[in-house]
Amino acid sequence: MENKINQAGREVPSIINGQEQIPYMGVGKYKPENKFKAAPPIRSSADYPSSGDKRVKTIKDAFKKFGLKDGMTISTHHHLRNGDFVANMVFDAAAELGIKNLRWFPSASFPVHAPNLKHLKSGVIHHIEGSMNGPLGDFVSEGNMKGTGVLRSHGGRYQAVQDGEVHIDFAVISAPASDPFGNANGLRGPAACGLLGFALADSQYADRVIVVTDNLEPFPCIPWQIQGNNVDCVVEVDSIGDPTKIISGTTQLTKSPDRLFIAELAVEFAMKSGIIKDGFSLQSGAGGTSLAFTVFLRDIMRKEGIKARFMRGGSTKYLTDMLEEGLTDYILDGQTFDLDGVRSMRENPAHQDTSPFTSYNYHGKGNFASILDAVILGATEVDLDFNANVVTHSDGRLLHGIGGWQNCLFGKTVILPIPLFRDRIPVIVDRVTTLTGPGELIDVIVTERGIAINPRRLDLINAVNGMGLPIKTIQELKEEAEKICGGIPKKPKLGDKTVAVIKWVDGTIIDAVKQVL
Amino acid sequence: MENKINQAGREVPSIINGQEQIPYMGVGKYKPENKFKAAPPIRSSADYPSSGDKRVKTIKDAFKKFGLKDGMTISTHHHLRNGDFVANMVFDAAAELGIKNLRWFPSASFPVHAPNLKHLKSGVIHHIEGSMNGPLGDFVSEGNMKGTGVLRSHGGRYQAVQDGEVHIDFAVISAPASDPFGNANGLRGPAACGLLGFALADSQYADRVIVVTDNLEPFPCIPWQIQGNNVDCVVEVDSIGDPTKIISGTTQLTKSPDRLFIAELAVEFAMKSGIIKDGFSLQSGAGGTSLAFTVFLRDIMRKEGIKARFMRGGSTKYLTDMLEEGLTDYILDGQTFDLDGVRSMRENPAHQDTSPFTSYNYHGKGNFASILDAVILGATEVDLDFNANVVTHSDGRLLHGIGGWQNCLFGKTVILPIPLFRDRIPVIVDRVTTLTGPGELIDVIVTERGIAINPRRLDLINAVNGMGLPIKTIQELKEEAEKICGGIPKKPKLGDKTVAVIKWVDGTIIDAVKQVL
Repeated sequence: MENKINQAGREVPSIINGQEQIPYMGVGKYKPENKFKAAPPIRSSADYPSSGDKRVKTIKDAFKKFGLKDGMTISTHHHLRNGDFVANMVFDAAAELGIKNLRWFPSASFPVHAPNLKHLKSGVIHHIEGSMNGPLGDFVSEGNMKGTGVLRSHGGRYQAVQDGEVHIDFAVISAPASDPFGNANGLRGPAACGLLGFALADSQYADRVIVVTDNLEPFPCIPWQIQGNNVDCVVEVDSIGDPTKIISGTTQLTKSPDRLFIAELAVEFAMKSGIIKDGFSLQSGAGGTSLAFTVFLRDIMRKEGIKARFMRGGSTKYLTDMLEEGLTDYILDGQTFDLDGVRSMRENPAHQDTSPFTSYNYHGKGNFASILDAVILGATEVDLDFNANVVTHSDGRLLHGIGGWQNCLFGKTVILPIPLFRDRIPVIVDRVTTLTGPGELIDVIVTERGIAINPRRLDLINAVNGMGLPIKTIQELKEEAEKICGGIPKKPKLGDKTVAVIKWVDGTIIDAVKQVL
Repeated sequence: MENKINQAGREVPSIINGQEQIPYMGVGKYKPENKFKAAPPIRSSADYPSSGDKRVKTIKDAFKKFGLKDGMTISTHHHLRNGDFVANMVFDAAAELGIKNLRWFPSASFPVHAPNLKHLKSGVIHHIEGSMNGPLGDFVSEGNMKGTGVLRSHGGRYQAVQDGEVHIDFAVISAPASDPFGNANGLRGPAACGLLGFALADSQYADRVIVVTDNLEPFPCIPWQIQGNNVDCVVEVDSIGDPTKIISGTTQLTKSPDRLFIAELAVEFAMKSGIIKDGFSLQSGAGGTSLAFTVFLRDIMRKEGIKARFMRGGSTKYLTDMLEEGLTDYILDGQTFDLDGVRSMRENPAHQDTSPFTSYNYHGKGNFASILDAVILGATEVDLDFNANVVTHSDGRLLHGIGGWQNCLFGKTVILPIPLFRDRIPVIVDRVTTLTGPGELIDVIVTERGIAINPRRLDLINAVNGMGLPIKTIQELKEEAEKICGGIPKKPKLGDKTVAVIKWVDGTIIDAVKQVL
């Protein structure tokens, strides 16, 4: 496998799992000229039951009926998060049929999928393309997977399917509610999770689409977040997931005084820089600090009578309260995190479900991410050029997926409220272990010891000048952290083997992840 | 142009407008093997404004910006019906740019589009593919159009675009509400028309998509019946249409005693045959007799406490009243016909907008049409084998489009409540002037002088046996009509030139329409 140095100065392989790759060329630089979207096979209604009842008894039967073969690609989705039962059923069924060398293409995998390790070891699964958390991440980090992992953002996953980079033979979609025709949503049933947007690309482009449900409703299952007209068959099972692990009853705010302070400082920055004004838009996640940011912001909006046009989440009770209180016209929701989020999406037309197509796909005619006034994100490491890492910690181990993180970097102002150090390891470094996002898209770092603004954003630097904010250079923050922690962090011990690559939003390779020794 | 005899015994051309054609092979017989859907070009967000503001000043500017050229295809839609201003603007703009030989691909054209006759005469428009009403229909019927007209059902139009039979270079979508990103719907604004489902295929598959609106809303315009991620630019105009001609204030019931009687008899048949029972589904149109059918049925449902699972329309006040009264769980709406329909769709989540993709596309993994228990349709002529015509009258002149008529024939029981004669011309004939739907899919003819059941439907014949209904053979009905009208109708005077062809739902040619002399 010949390596190349990409525009970000990272050494990346030119072939991955037998497919030629394009090295990262810079933000907005790679353009697909005279290329066309993937073209799925044309089907005929003559081959589907005229009654609209597409039920098939088991996942195994569905694989047999539609011809699962060695080397094919099966996709699954992470709407049921660490409560998902379906992705394990899928590969158990494939194993029973004696199938080998499958590519598993999840939108994300979780610790609950550890049983699939046996299928990785036995050769049923050749490799995973998708974010890998917990035991699967460790398996890959240690160099044990036959193929190379490929990590994509939510938008990058849509782009890869749309562009034909990843051809899905079988998409298996877990559906909390479905009718026998395959119209499905995540709004009702014991495994209600909110929306099914991560499966949209799969339903549109896969050769065969299997909906798996534990809550069959009579036709029509409305709204059809997944359209039955794209679905080949519906399989009923006892349970698609463990509700207690799919979604939290209520989302918990962080109690760490440091994180609360960082969130409060980030809100102060957003206010003083003029970003927060009537009609603004904001995306922040459901993680501890992001959530605290939202809550502090809400209090100020109430006090000052400011109203947002739309907010994007990870929806939580905090966000749905703001919608119901009239603090925002709309929630554009990419993923629902608690029961209030699910209820609100089910009941309130102003709580709109979205998909990686609408929100993030870089190979569309624009997407929503760049329209946002402000985006609040996390990072495991940031370097002096504001380049950031989210997939590995400084030990080099695959920690979690990219999610919508890369896509959100296109927001007008990107703010990372992060601690200056974690477990006495500084977060600001000379060179991030894994480059996930280019510094030119990251505008502000807010830490417990000060705020660093990217020198490219002179407008922001000027806007907050003399406002009494603790503005520092990123170099100063780095030095403070190193003083406190007693020097720069140790380099991780990495081997030569590339265990995974990180795709940029346009399908090019921005970095490679090496084996942890 | 070599002609072939198709499976229905009709002589059809093998090449139309330079494209090879497949003759009709029978219901469900033609299957696209190893064929793939159309693959639109991959775009990059780098080429669209990051602000999300895609506004361009005029339609002409949009054509210039994206390179309209001679011989291209431009699509428009009939959501604004006979009140539409946009399709005329489109070809005026093309004419100003000196463009020639365009294919106009409307979902339907109306008398309001008569000004485009000048562009047909001058060569700006080469030919129309889409239903042609009024003056445009006459122009084509008389053999004046340069190319050959192609008439498709709503589902056939989706199929043709999806399958790449019709490549759209520019789709122009009239939008009663849109944001600057191109998210659009038909629910609000002076030209509110309900839904925009006929433009779905165009938004998905056209090279370039132009949204034209007179009601720009701030992002996000929700719901996004048309997704801005598929839209290249947005053009603001003073007015997209005349509200008084787009939609009626309230729908009027027929007052003809004959039609009321036919409708009542059709309801009696539907009741006695056992079709109408708790949980049933029905599609009926907004035409006089269909509407009367719905109203009579509603009265019985109220009386007998019967509730439908879903009803499909053409929605009207009658249908929305039934929804609000709890007589049906859902309306699955393909086209909104009055202001109550628009209001209900805007306010009631159980009033679901649909598209030809969900409802009718035969080259999908099934569609909704075949799930319906009963479908109420019209016809201009029916023959002894129950074959029917909807596009020409017995004078051979192109009268109106196919709409969803062919697609609806796949419903479980298809009932045509039709008068035995119109203007003293019998409706039941030896051979329909233009074959639009094969008799094997048509089950029941209800006339003012009796009901004929297709002999293929022994189950229906047995179900109503001894129920006191005036059941006759279709031969008997034909003879009665001829006795009253004084003989069989005169054959129309037709020339040899094929002025248009009728596509079946699978893209094959079921019949040709000859020039009227």
